[in-house]
Amino acid sequence: HKKYKIAILPGDGIGPEVMQETYKIIEIIKKKLLINIQTSEYDIGGISIDKHGIALPKKTLIGCEKSDAILLGSIGGPKWDILPPKERPEIASLLPIRKHFNLFANLRPSILHKKLNYLSPLKKNNIKDGFDILCVRELTGGIYFGKPRIEINKKNMHYAIDTSIYHKYEIQRIAEIAFQESLKRRCKVTSIDKANVLYTSKLWRKTVNKISKKYPKVHLSHLYFDNAVMQIIKNPNQFDVILCPNLIGDVISDECGSLTGSIGMLPSASLNTKNFGLYEPAGGAAPDTQGKNIANPIAQILSLSMLIKHSLKMNHISNLINTAVYKTLLKGFRTHDISHDKNFVTTKEMGNEIVKSF
Amino acid sequence: HKKYKIAILPGDGIGPEVMQETYKIIEIIKKKLLINIQTSEYDIGGISIDKHGIALPKKTLIGCEKSDAILLGSIGGPKWDILPPKERPEIASLLPIRKHFNLFANLRPSILHKKLNYLSPLKKNNIKDGFDILCVRELTGGIYFGKPRIEINKKNMHYAIDTSIYHKYEIQRIAEIAFQESLKRRCKVTSIDKANVLYTSKLWRKTVNKISKKYPKVHLSHLYFDNAVMQIIKNPNQFDVILCPNLIGDVISDECGSLTGSIGMLPSASLNTKNFGLYEPAGGAAPDTQGKNIANPIAQILSLSMLIKHSLKMNHISNLINTAVYKTLLKGFRTHDISHDKNFVTTKEMGNEIVKSF
Ligand SMILES: CC(C)[C@H](C(=O)O)[C@@H](O)C(=O)O
Ligand SMILES: CC(C)[C@H](C(=O)O)[C@@H](O)C(=O)O
Repeated sequence: HKKYKIAILPGDGIGPEVMQETYKIIEIIKKKLLINIQTSEYDIGGISIDKHGIALPKKTLIGCEKSDAILLGSIGGPKWDILPPKERPEIASLLPIRKHFNLFANLRPSILHKKLNYLSPLKKNNIKDGFDILCVRELTGGIYFGKPRIEINKKNMHYAIDTSIYHKYEIQRIAEIAFQESLKRRCKVTSIDKANVLYTSKLWRKTVNKISKKYPKVHLSHLYFDNAVMQIIKNPNQFDVILCPNLIGDVISDECGSLTGSIGMLPSASLNTKNFGLYEPAGGAAPDTQGKNIANPIAQILSLSMLIKHSLKMNHISNLINTAVYKTLLKGFRTHDISHDKNFVTTKEMGNEIVKSF
Repeated sequence: HKKYKIAILPGDGIGPEVMQETYKIIEIIKKKLLINIQTSEYDIGGISIDKHGIALPKKTLIGCEKSDAILLGSIGGPKWDILPPKERPEIASLLPIRKHFNLFANLRPSILHKKLNYLSPLKKNNIKDGFDILCVRELTGGIYFGKPRIEINKKNMHYAIDTSIYHKYEIQRIAEIAFQESLKRRCKVTSIDKANVLYTSKLWRKTVNKISKKYPKVHLSHLYFDNAVMQIIKNPNQFDVILCPNLIGDVISDECGSLTGSIGMLPSASLNTKNFGLYEPAGGAAPDTQGKNIANPIAQILSLSMLIKHSLKMNHISNLINTAVYKTLLKGFRTHDISHDKNFVTTKEMGNEIVKSF
């Protein structure tokens, strides 16, 4: 039997709680399906600053390096918001871990199920029978890492600079991922840029157009960032795969997520070229619900499902997890955040119900 | 009597049609209120490319220079979309005219009236009794104009670069405008940046915080761009003035506009330090409705109202125009784009009704 190693990084906020429920899913997979999964826990984020004085310790990086994939809870909280931005848990751990493992491809599905339509902030007229969008965001380039990035304060001159840079190969490899993913879906890619103003966007559009030639079955279109934000609100249903540069994807994926009205159900994957990846809920640490046994463990459990699909390459098991989650929802179980009324189950109850639905 | 000069640039798409209705408003102001307004028309955009081979002719610039303000219709259309981005009417006229007149302050009100709640794509629960947001967008800095901006294609290396740059003085002057405007409203400023990642945003936040010390009555808060896009969807009502850097403001103002569901009613102003400004509808040229006598002239008429307020400094007349528009809406007149049912008036009828409401 092949042995799979997962590095578990529960992190801050609701991370440890929802991770507890995810362990239950890992256990049932090991027992029922006889998959040899080994987990090891490491510190990251605020809790790691508290324990070790550093948000991303060497030990954590080495542990991750020895694993087949990383399952992350969440990072940050008000306790550490007094730190200067650079030292804050999110910045001091998320950005370096992305760069260290070259996790250039961020996949964020935003699904609004027909049965959960009531959760969306949009009118029924706009969402119709729900939507299913996959945001593919470039995660290690653009204005997040370009140099120079600096503040200059000389006599008579005080200014700051950021640099956005995209190499053609960076655009090619993320575009390939978007087209490949769209083939498994509805064969539509919408690429978002600001090619009417930005040079990086002009190269982005040109390169995406070239890659699209390899995928004659996929319908490609382009939207400007400002227009895209409006079109997504107007009719999210028209989108299948959305392909974005780093900063644009940061915003567009959050927009799509918030239009589902259930950010506690949305997983994410950040991958490199070797199928190694970091998997985490799209929502944040949600410190306001921490420790109350009310957080929704579904985003974390679906992140495990993405991990099993993309890094462990066991599609059928990923599908089993998804099915168990949807069965549980169909049975009517709702955590606080997605409940229509005053009936809701706790974090632990939701975990147990998903286990029962296997 | 003081003489006021307005440069009228009808431009493309529905521009000339909605401008026709705006002339009616100018006429009634001249006649009824005995204000000496002189108008002169100049070419801009696609029509100017067709007539003169250039989107922003010298003659237009000189005409604008001789005026107290510019009233613009709209620019661009599919006919010119085949041109390379740089030569397209929007880019070849809007960006240079902003830079030429130093129009650093873009004001975009997004108002959803209680009576027009049905137009919003958001559920009633999210919008409650409507909202009234003023986006203050920095318009001549940031990543729109920073250098280097270039594509490099050497052996083995193909990449593109954009540079975002903000000088402290640029942030100070736009922040001043936001705080000043908020004093006339609900005394709340929300500044949007990506200070957890960008150096320009760190300087932005620091500078805005400093300016806020001069305005102890104004409540200032900060949001990250990605989070802001979500909060605006969740509860637009919580916002009063939103202050943004150039690219962020491009997106946020369009988001706010689209949440009103009536982009055909939204005006905008782009000002320099001398109260000179360019005023235009926030929506685009809408070529699909062009020539059908169905476009909504309200955005153009309210742009005239903003012009009279900010550049001609006649608040009372601006208020008279606003009142006439709202009276007309209260009477139940709706153009196609904002109609609940199959009853709607034409562009010309709407113009006439607003004149009657004076
Ligand atoms: C915390 C922040 C740096 C990060 C980003 O901007 O990428 C976050 O918003 C995300 O999307 O993971
Ligand atoms: C046409 C384009 C360059 C412009 C911008 O991005 O500023 C437009 O979107 C706007 O908001 O006026």
